[in-house]
Parts: sequence; structure tokens; C-alpha cells
Amino acid sequence: MSQKVTIGLVGFGCVGTGLYEVLNQSNLLDAEIKRIVVKTKGKKRLLPEEVFSYDINEILNDPEINTVVELIDDANAAYDIVVAAFEKGKNVISANKKLIAEHLDELILLSRSNNVSFLYEASVCGSIPIIRNLEEYYNNDSLSKVEGICNGTTNYILTQTNYGKDYEAALKEAQELGFAETDPTLDVDGFDAKFKLLILIKHAFGITEEPNTIFNYGIRHIKPEDVRYAAEKGYRLKLFSRAERAGNDVFGFVAPHFITSEHPAFNVNNEFNSMVVEALFSDKQLFVGKGAGSHPTASAVLSDVSALSFDYRYEYKKEGNGQELHFSSDFEVKVYLGSADIEQINLFQFEQVDEVYQSTSYNYKTGWMKFDKIKCIDFNKLHHLFLAVLPEDIRFKKSDNTKQVSEAQSILA
Amino acid sequence: MSQKVTIGLVGFGCVGTGLYEVLNQSNLLDAEIKRIVVKTKGKKRLLPEEVFSYDINEILNDPEINTVVELIDDANAAYDIVVAAFEKGKNVISANKKLIAEHLDELILLSRSNNVSFLYEASVCGSIPIIRNLEEYYNNDSLSKVEGICNGTTNYILTQTNYGKDYEAALKEAQELGFAETDPTLDVDGFDAKFKLLILIKHAFGITEEPNTIFNYGIRHIKPEDVRYAAEKGYRLKLFSRAERAGNDVFGFVAPHFITSEHPAFNVNNEFNSMVVEALFSDKQLFVGKGAGSHPTASAVLSDVSALSFDYRYEYKKEGNGQELHFSSDFEVKVYLGSADIEQINLFQFEQVDEVYQSTSYNYKTGWMKFDKIKCIDFNKLHHLFLAVLPEDIRFKKSDNTKQVSEAQSILA
Repeated sequence: MSQKVTIGLVGFGCVGTGLYEVLNQSNLLDAEIKRIVVKTKGKKRLLPEEVFSYDINEILNDPEINTVVELIDDANAAYDIVVAAFEKGKNVISANKKLIAEHLDELILLSRSNNVSFLYEASVCGSIPIIRNLEEYYNNDSLSKVEGICNGTTNYILTQTNYGKDYEAALKEAQELGFAETDPTLDVDGFDAKFKLLILIKHAFGITEEPNTIFNYGIRHIKPEDVRYAAEKGYRLKLFSRAERAGNDVFGFVAPHFITSEHPAFNVNNEFNSMVVEALFSDKQLFVGKGAGSHPTASAVLSDVSALSFDYRYEYKKEGNGQELHFSSDFEVKVYLGSADIEQINLFQFEQVDEVYQSTSYNYKTGWMKFDKIKCIDFNKLHHLFLAVLPEDIRFKKSDNTKQVSEAQSILA
Repeated sequence: MSQKVTIGLVGFGCVGTGLYEVLNQSNLLDAEIKRIVVKTKGKKRLLPEEVFSYDINEILNDPEINTVVELIDDANAAYDIVVAAFEKGKNVISANKKLIAEHLDELILLSRSNNVSFLYEASVCGSIPIIRNLEEYYNNDSLSKVEGICNGTTNYILTQTNYGKDYEAALKEAQELGFAETDPTLDVDGFDAKFKLLILIKHAFGITEEPNTIFNYGIRHIKPEDVRYAAEKGYRLKLFSRAERAGNDVFGFVAPHFITSEHPAFNVNNEFNSMVVEALFSDKQLFVGKGAGSHPTASAVLSDVSALSFDYRYEYKKEGNGQELHFSSDFEVKVYLGSADIEQINLFQFEQVDEVYQSTSYNYKTGWMKFDKIKCIDFNKLHHLFLAVLPEDIRFKKSDNTKQVSEAQSILA
């Protein structure tokens, strides 16, 4: 039943090197890396120079290689490689969330028309087997929510701000530790978390969204006062990639969330990732593990290699199961807006205000806003403002909001 | 590719009723309960009397029924039903950990020789998909450890003792809430946790043990002084089902463990279950979810039904993979022994003593003991004694123990 996986590896950075080590030490698996293609000649690498090739065609035109493992950073170059691999009848394993998020349906279609497999467990939450579980385990237990800490960099920074560091110092530390890139935009502004959310939404709800239709707001503007607010209320800040279903509507976005100690992810700190899956009958499930790093990510790639040896394919069972789910932003969300500049806060239109705090140096306002309106704001222009979602935080137009409203009123009273 | 699952349901208690509800509300699945067989006539049930049958042959002899879902308490009666179902060429789904633990290899063999499937996700940790993950996801990432809170009853009781209740009051409360049976022996003495551990060991390490070769010690003898010791040290008590690999040896036992706030399961409280899986490359993974209750358990049964519709079978990939693993008790463990009666503590032979505390009302001793010796003690005769494993807690004969030894010496110094 099991078949040998002969791998052409593209990219030999942190994860590629990890895969090589992992595969070498895991002799349980009938898999072999036959060729490694890299971009730059003469770079100092773990293996001797002669092992490497600089021409992707040496992988694509090798009929013995049945699987391309693509582990490069450049999503555009990766796209060309993956498409060519499919067309040559090769399976593809990728960890490139940007590539996958930007071309998901197209790549699925291509893999199907070429009758090969396309697996990417390592693209979301590293070592946490979340895609496989959404695919295989939760296929019939009506899912209502997925909510993850999918980006270890921002979780590391947020954890450090809890310990009293300011944002800049925490970011610098994350960069020194190798958790954050020199240009941290993809991480700290929530793009990386959004790419992962898009993939999660596909496997949880069977919907494919375009990246630019999903709202992402990151942690770049967090200030010590926002951290102090969290401490005063007993909250911690986490950047969530979150999608939720209400009726046939699916809501999804990336934003910082204040959470209470009751939240399963409260103790998920530093570079760790987590995923909460809520389903009708199984109730809340929490998964925690390392979301990045050479070996944890490589172990997810390895599990795809292993699955391939049994000819595994994602079946996208939630697609076309008779339910017409669609992506929506027609809901209200309870937010905190903090700024030294009260004018910036007053730009925002609240449906309902819960708290207002003003002082000479800092101001905040909490209450309910329409998500549609939040989506339209260009936060890049509001450097002094920090937005975060509060606990008990969403109300849907069609649902009964009595509880939240009366809670809010009691705060106002 | 998917086939209809026509179910004969045996037992209509808490989980059976849950499955009926879950299956009715989950219309994504091509599955139907055709017949329900129960033992007692005239009992008040959710469905009208005419739906039920009292003769198991009405399931066994119905050629349309391709799957028997066995959800009864009596492991002996369940054994006869499951064997008969296999012989009639029917798949079996069971949640009966005692049945499975006592007859695992025999039942696997029978299912294979009759070319049917035998699934039992619900038997371990309810809604947590641990067996499927061990089977499918960790098959090539060399596993080193599984450590679970697999029994919700004892976790509920231990959590309540943390809040200041004594054992008897907490047990009574658990019984009133329906978490504990009238005779709580299976839960509080760790038998239930042991049956689950045996199943975990099979799927994690490919070894089948007899239940009576696995040591289990529960929480029956916990006293307020033991809870106070935990509080003083910043520990919490958890009953772990734990198996660990060192070289080709596998160590496994059930015992209360003091854990620090660094342990991933520190915040897993009340009736929740958890599982920590440690593997060479993926590092520590934590799974948390509801381990019992009608719907969470039924959701695990449902996931087996769903898997059956795709003709899924466990492959027991760790069996016969060329590694000769064997079960061993040749290791040392760092324990706490507490008792009002110093004589009971002095019955035990320590390899190395770390702490001794004596007072007029209570005494304890901590240090390293040979597990072989602990195994031979009849704890039932030692009512006043409580044993628990301490953090940094195991040393293997063949490994380097320098770290633990020097730590221990610094405590003694």
C-alpha cells in the first residue's frame, strides 16, 4: 500500500535543512531526497557543494522524482515551480502560506487535473496538525469557530510586552532570536496570520477568499498604556486569526484580542502557536505546539511526506456539501481604541459606547462598532491608535443579542 | 468513494442518546441508525418503545447493517457482541476502554481476518482526536512520550481539592454531577486511566501490554496535607496516564503527578482531559478537550462513523516497523510519600532521599525510588499513605543522570 517518496527539494534554508536532518534521522519512512535545488552558488551550507543543483529542471525533468518539496521564501518563484511540478505529474508539498493563500483554488484545480497530491500542513501553525484534523476529524461535527495564534513572532512580542518590554525592544529581541525578519511587516501587521486564516477557512468551512477581502490589523501600534489596560482588567493580548460561522455566514479577520484567563489560549506564550476549534458536539478543542522553527516545521513537512507514501490527498470535504456558506462582514464587534490623541479615537463611529477614559497623556474608548466600518479604515495613517477586540466580542445581526446588550448596559449604568 | 454506514446501535445510555442526537443534527453524513438494541424493557427513554429491540440477533442477522456501534458498560457482554459482529462481517465502533484494553490484539486479529474495521476513538479522552493523530500524524516523527489526563472524574476531584475541598466532599460532588459512578473504584484507583494508557501505548509505540502488567495508583488516599504540600511548592496534582520511550525500552504507568506551572497541563482543570505528545522534531504538542459527557464522546463516535464511510482502518503502523521496543520497569522515579504514620513511609526503600519532613500530625519524604520496587507494593493496605511523582521525575538506567543527581545533591547539601 505504501509507495516510495522520491523528493526534489527546492530551498535549503532553515526548514529545508531541518527536513534533511529529520528525514535522515527518521528511518521509518521510505523516502529519499534525491536532489536539492538552491538559488545562490557558493553559500556555506550543511552539505558539500556537489549535492546541490542550481537548475530547477534537474528536478522537474527527473522521472524518478515523484514529489517536489518547495521551501523557498519567494512566493512568485514558488508559484512557477509548483505549477511546473504539477504539469510534470509530480506531487507538491509546500510550506509557503503566501503562495497558497494567493493561488489556492487554482493550485487545487491544477493538482486535481494532473492527478497528483498537494499538501501543505507546515503552512499553518508549524507542528500543530491542524489542517489534517480539520480535513479528517472534524468533517462531520459541525464546526462553528476556528481561532488561532498562528504567528509566533507576534505572540513572542506580545508576551514580552506583558513582561514590561515596550514594542520596539520586544521586536528587536525577536529579530535577534531569529523569530522576526528584518522587515517585520508580514508578521507584525498580520499578513502572515491572514494567509494562514485563509487556508484555515478553506478547510474549516469550504470557502475560498481572496487575501485582500480579509481584514488584518496587527500589533505595530501597541503602546505601554494598552498593555497596562490589559493588566488592569486581567486580560492578555493575543493576535488571533479567527473565523466563525453564524447560520450560513462566515466571518473572518485578523486582529489583536484581549482575552481573559478563562480563554484556553491565555497561557500560550512566546513563540508557541495555538488553535481553538469549536464544534457543535465536541465542544472546544485546544491544540498547542511550536508554530515555527526548523525542526517543528520540518516535522509537519515530514508528516506530509509520510502521508504521500500512502497516497493521501486533501478531499476538501466541506466544499459543496450542500450548504451555501458565504463570507460576510455584516456583524458588530466590541473593541477597545486607545490613543494619546483623542481626535483619532473620535474619528470612529461607535454603535454603542461602553467606556470612555480620558487623561492628559492617554485616552481610550470601548464599545460596539460595525465591522464593515472598521474594515474601511486605513489604519496605516493612524500611528497613534491601537485597536483590539474585547472579550464577549461579536454580535451577529441575525442572532439574539440580548445578553451582550444587557451586559453592556449594566456597564454603562 | 464514500459508502453508506448503516448502524446497529447497542446501548442507549448517555453516549448512545448523544450519538442519536448528534447523527440526527449532522445531516452531512450518509449514515443511519437502523436498529437500537437495549437490555431493559419499559425504561423511560428519549424515543418511543417500538424503536427498540431487546435481541442482539436483530442487529447481527440484518444484512443491511454494516456497522455495530457498541456503547454498553458491561465489558464482558460487549466482548460477545463485538466478536459476533466481526464474525458476521460487520465493522465495529466501540467506546469501551475496558473491553479494548483486555482483548486488544485478539480483537484486531478478528477484525482483520474478517476484513472489517475496528475503531474506538471515543475510548480515550472523549472528544480529543488522540488515537487518530497518533495513527496518522505522528507515524514517522519518532515519538518519545505520551502523557495524558485521561480521566475527567479524577481531574475534577483533584481540581476541587485544589480549591480547598477534601477528597470525600469532592468525590460526592463529582457523583452528584454525574462525573463519577456510585462505585468510583475504576476512576479513582486509576484503572480507567490504565485501560486508556494501554490503548495509547499500542498506537504510540506499537506494543500491546496486559492490563495487569501496567502499574496504576490513583487518588483515593489524597489528604489535605498533600494538597498543602503542592500549594507550598507551587505545584498542582494531576493523575497522568504516561508512557515514555528511552532507547528500545518503553515505560508506562498511571500515578498522580505534582506538576509545575511550566507544564502544559497545569491549567487543564475540572472534567477536561489533555494529552501531551512529545516527538523528536515536532517537540511538545498539547491537546485539550472534554473527555467525557454525552455529546463530546458521541462526537468522537461520529468521527469514527464518518471515517468508516471512507472505509478507514487503523493500520497500527508502529507495529513491526523493525524496532524491537519492549515494555520495561527498569527505571527510577522521584516520588513524594506523605502519611500521618511515619512507619508507613519507612516501609519504603529509597535509592536516594531528598527531603524529610516530620511533625506530630504529618510526615513526608521525597527522593528517588526504583520503579520495580514501587510496583510490588500493595497500596490498598496502606490507607494512610499518599504517593505522587515529582517534577523532573524519571531517570533511566542507561541515560546520563548527571543533571538530576546534581540537582538532588544541591537540595541535600
